[in-house]
Amino acid sequence: MLRVGYPAKLDPSFLDVMPPGVELIALPDDLDHEIAVDVWIPDPLSNRAVRVWPYLRCVRLVLSMMAGTEWIPGTVGTHVTICNAHGAHNIATAEWTVTAILAVLKNLPLFLDIQQSRNWRRRKEADAAYERITGDRRPLHPPVMQEELTAKKVLLVGYGAIGKEIERMLAPFHVAITRIARTGRTDPVVHPVGELDALLPDAEIIILILPLTEQTHGLIGSAQFERMRQGALLVNAARGPIVQTDALIEALNAGRIRAALDVTDPEPPPEDHPLWRCPNLLITPHIGASTPEFARRSLQVAADELRRYMNGEPLHNAVQLAV
Amino acid sequence: MLRVGYPAKLDPSFLDVMPPGVELIALPDDLDHEIAVDVWIPDPLSNRAVRVWPYLRCVRLVLSMMAGTEWIPGTVGTHVTICNAHGAHNIATAEWTVTAILAVLKNLPLFLDIQQSRNWRRRKEADAAYERITGDRRPLHPPVMQEELTAKKVLLVGYGAIGKEIERMLAPFHVAITRIARTGRTDPVVHPVGELDALLPDAEIIILILPLTEQTHGLIGSAQFERMRQGALLVNAARGPIVQTDALIEALNAGRIRAALDVTDPEPPPEDHPLWRCPNLLITPHIGASTPEFARRSLQVAADELRRYMNGEPLHNAVQLAV
Repeated sequence: MLRVGYPAKLDPSFLDVMPPGVELIALPDDLDHEIAVDVWIPDPLSNRAVRVWPYLRCVRLVLSMMAGTEWIPGTVGTHVTICNAHGAHNIATAEWTVTAILAVLKNLPLFLDIQQSRNWRRRKEADAAYERITGDRRPLHPPVMQEELTAKKVLLVGYGAIGKEIERMLAPFHVAITRIARTGRTDPVVHPVGELDALLPDAEIIILILPLTEQTHGLIGSAQFERMRQGALLVNAARGPIVQTDALIEALNAGRIRAALDVTDPEPPPEDHPLWRCPNLLITPHIGASTPEFARRSLQVAADELRRYMNGEPLHNAVQLAV
Repeated sequence: MLRVGYPAKLDPSFLDVMPPGVELIALPDDLDHEIAVDVWIPDPLSNRAVRVWPYLRCVRLVLSMMAGTEWIPGTVGTHVTICNAHGAHNIATAEWTVTAILAVLKNLPLFLDIQQSRNWRRRKEADAAYERITGDRRPLHPPVMQEELTAKKVLLVGYGAIGKEIERMLAPFHVAITRIARTGRTDPVVHPVGELDALLPDAEIIILILPLTEQTHGLIGSAQFERMRQGALLVNAARGPIVQTDALIEALNAGRIRAALDVTDPEPPPEDHPLWRCPNLLITPHIGASTPEFARRSLQVAADELRRYMNGEPLHNAVQLAV
């Protein structure tokens, strides 16, 4: 009987999809004694998961509920196979990305502030804000209250499953998409990441949706911000450390660019962190994947992978194979 | 020489598209003497336009820059032909609609409030808010931070040019769309407005994008709110008086539904109006159409219509023919 440890807080009904022949073991957050499990489903919050890990014995396989697994290899070492929940977050994360882009272009932060102040006439501020951030001098009339996504130039940095889903959701807006991934390809054309700097100046919207690795750590720094056009919108739907926070703060405070972040570095930013006070910035607290459908989809992916593991079939979503 | 009066504030470069053989006459907001023009392009803000109208003489044709022209017949009478800017607002208004839906489903008002308070841990509030408004009792873990648009049931009330554009932009989200218009049709199926009450209970998102007429005035009142499911999202991208404001306030304050409005009744609501304080409500100050592309597109539509008028061809966008 394969022993599968899962977060005790998880609604057990989500585990109904697990294959027969496994013993399910609930692991409380405050686990304080050693326990042997063959397979570990960590809590989606890594800071909770790392507190449980020291008490686990015999783990051979980690089935993450998340797409990003960058904290796991350093925690569990090289003798454990690690699989992510490939595909389970595509829809939610792509929807967050489209929402974030539209919210910034449509000036929602300003309009929500106006709603709070109950002063409809403050809508005039939108016109000045548009001129300031885009550098597009407008005639006096009619005023510009918000922008269109339609026909914008988008640089999609990362072209895995979520990147492709973002492209699919952007299609009705007839955006001009340029794709970047680790390695270049054709059909469709994907540029290698080495061409990032050359492609940045043309982009009106830059979407980051690539894994955090040694190569992508700090990928966007002051040299990259300098190459961006005035008023470009940087959207980080990936991981905080892909962007150098100090350089981001400088570019925002200089009024050079706009940004929308679901992830930050540090995450969460402490209350006195200067990121909170930057202009032209929308922050959501890492909620991009957390929809009502999330847990069920993730555990379905995990269950399918576990079935392959038990049958000795090739794994689909291994990000590390045990050595 | 046909005399065409236009708002003096308008950048004259937008009028480059007007056909030859017309004399362009700038009409200041504070016009205080009579002036004869054959064609009138009113200011997009109707409260400005109605102050100019009493000084105009000889007007035979009104070319509105807007899609909604409901204030014009009562102002200019029946002896004037009125054309709207059909098609010029499709993209911007449809984009606003998609933005508003996503912003509410993704909880952006709460997350922007959290950003202001610089307290990332307040993200927990999203889970309780989700349970409260949808009535969907959730397991303890993982929390629900926001919802997906994908696969939602959408009731599209109004199926003109903008309604069709909204449908096109919603396509990648695989929503189940039910269409309503004044008269029913097939291919695709459009239900007559008389079936509204019967179709309301099934809808998760209700989009209003129909003209304000005697028939649609007050279309959504307490009987309609009562038929909506718990947590339904009402989106008004049309005109404020299509919704009965008192009934809307009651439904919102009872925690029954959610709403996103770009238009209100009264518009603007005075600072002490109870609408401003309603929960689960997103208000933008009638900015749906006001993008950088708006004026140029509207005046292109007006110029094309004027050319047809001058050539004696049938008009494309007449909402009232002079009697």
